[in-house]
Amino acid sequence: MSRIVLALGGNALGNTPQKQLELVKSTSRSIADLIESGNEVIVVHGNGPQVGMIHLAMSIAANQDEKIPGMPYPECGAMSQGYIGYHLQQAIGRELRLRKIEKNVATVISQVIVDKTDPAFKNPTKPVGRFYSKEEADRLAAESGATFMEDAGRGYRQVIASPDPRKIVEIETVKTLTENGNVVITVGGGGIPIIETQDGYSGVMAVIDKDKSAALLATELEADVLMILTAVDKVCLDYNKETQCEVDEMSLSEAKEYMSQGQFAPGSMLPKVEACISFIEKNPKGKALISSLESAKPAIEGKTGTVITA
Amino acid sequence: MSRIVLALGGNALGNTPQKQLELVKSTSRSIADLIESGNEVIVVHGNGPQVGMIHLAMSIAANQDEKIPGMPYPECGAMSQGYIGYHLQQAIGRELRLRKIEKNVATVISQVIVDKTDPAFKNPTKPVGRFYSKEEADRLAAESGATFMEDAGRGYRQVIASPDPRKIVEIETVKTLTENGNVVITVGGGGIPIIETQDGYSGVMAVIDKDKSAALLATELEADVLMILTAVDKVCLDYNKETQCEVDEMSLSEAKEYMSQGQFAPGSMLPKVEACISFIEKNPKGKALISSLESAKPAIEGKTGTVITA
Repeated sequence: MSRIVLALGGNALGNTPQKQLELVKSTSRSIADLIESGNEVIVVHGNGPQVGMIHLAMSIAANQDEKIPGMPYPECGAMSQGYIGYHLQQAIGRELRLRKIEKNVATVISQVIVDKTDPAFKNPTKPVGRFYSKEEADRLAAESGATFMEDAGRGYRQVIASPDPRKIVEIETVKTLTENGNVVITVGGGGIPIIETQDGYSGVMAVIDKDKSAALLATELEADVLMILTAVDKVCLDYNKETQCEVDEMSLSEAKEYMSQGQFAPGSMLPKVEACISFIEKNPKGKALISSLESAKPAIEGKTGTVITA
Repeated sequence: MSRIVLALGGNALGNTPQKQLELVKSTSRSIADLIESGNEVIVVHGNGPQVGMIHLAMSIAANQDEKIPGMPYPECGAMSQGYIGYHLQQAIGRELRLRKIEKNVATVISQVIVDKTDPAFKNPTKPVGRFYSKEEADRLAAESGATFMEDAGRGYRQVIASPDPRKIVEIETVKTLTENGNVVITVGGGGIPIIETQDGYSGVMAVIDKDKSAALLATELEADVLMILTAVDKVCLDYNKETQCEVDEMSLSEAKEYMSQGQFAPGSMLPKVEACISFIEKNPKGKALISSLESAKPAIEGKTGTVITA
């Protein structure tokens, strides 16, 4: 039996509630496969499209109707955790009942502390929300103080800070539930970003990389495996070149070497490899795995995926 | 030490995120008072204004922007549980730390099963969302099949079913957390309403009365006390008449007698008294209490509030 922290990629969810209800069915089969093999599973999911959609919808509505308040990003993150968690827990619960596995499934709303002096706040890089023309972006930037950047030739988008996760406030709750046989869905979207203030915590305009938060969660839970599921079965070198090749295994030092060669794309494979490195450095006995949602079970059985160990 | 299921009224929360962050501070002081006295507390909150606001915002935005999907009521309920739970857990956690009480606070996203043959579905009574003119309401009713009713002379509102809660799907998770010293926030807004289908559960267009769900939760948890907090310190007879008087104690039979006299207003005190009766009938050793948020602690100490016992 292994304790597995599973980080789900964007393809595990959907852009509309109807589509998401469909997609979480196959997502849940992959998750139930791991549970049926006797593993403990803790699920972390992304929320990029969902939190962006919720925030945009609330902004549009607030502009239209004075009774509707604008909703800050941390609150939108909390809403996305409830929305996505509900679909996931319903679908995983169904899949477990079909397989006669008696386990409870729980979504825990999660706050993750970031450092207000994190350099990311001075250099926001994470695009969120919709695309604007240069003129619109300039006007919005002047009005709101937000930062906008040109994104891949498709227009301008707001960028916000993506600071490192420091501490998961609800970690003890997650431990209790995991140790009592619950499948826990937590740290959704990387967690609701908060900073420590003089008298408590306060939500902050930021998004935390969900793979980094999953690595922190796996470290804190002393997980055996951090499993990052994405669109590909294995990590590739020379990606999209003629010399492209898949990697079955990497040591920490090999992974760092490939990183220094610029093998992994920022915003794509790079943060996943970084998350794996961070987990393995703190849990040298642990194993990090990158594979696809469909290959979750064969990957845990060592039949596919890219393994990173100390 | 008592196990208390606490149902918070609308005055415990707010209509904007800013206002809500303010209000949950005093709400949390009342909750922490109970915990500091050595009680186990499980928190249930309403979500009427919040879920209505989220649903309306998503509808307005979906009409404006084709990339934004309309969001069904159950999903909006899940979003409201995340949003309100986040604010409550942050504020309660802060208050506990200030008092040096080492307890974790957790929001559990909760699905509550209703019966699809519940007569409430044939007779929707719960007003949700905004007011419309008769013409608008007639047009929307014809377009969508929704039911609209005249509401207190202020216009027409959509009404949806308010079926009885039958089962809390996440009850074992709530038990585990409570028994391990967590302050649990759950069954928010009465729970996400779902029905049993051939192959699982499915969200349904309905709202469940949060006091009824709190009574079910208290019954399932074998709570010592179901405490319903509202705007008044005590239940009144002859409310708003010259002969108005406060009730200190009611037996089950007295409570039913007052109900048959029409002493309690539907949609206001009546469902609270009904919830208390339902709890006491199933847990005859339990105590039900109706009081105000401010008086939570004196009420549990027997100094104020209306007590209902077998």
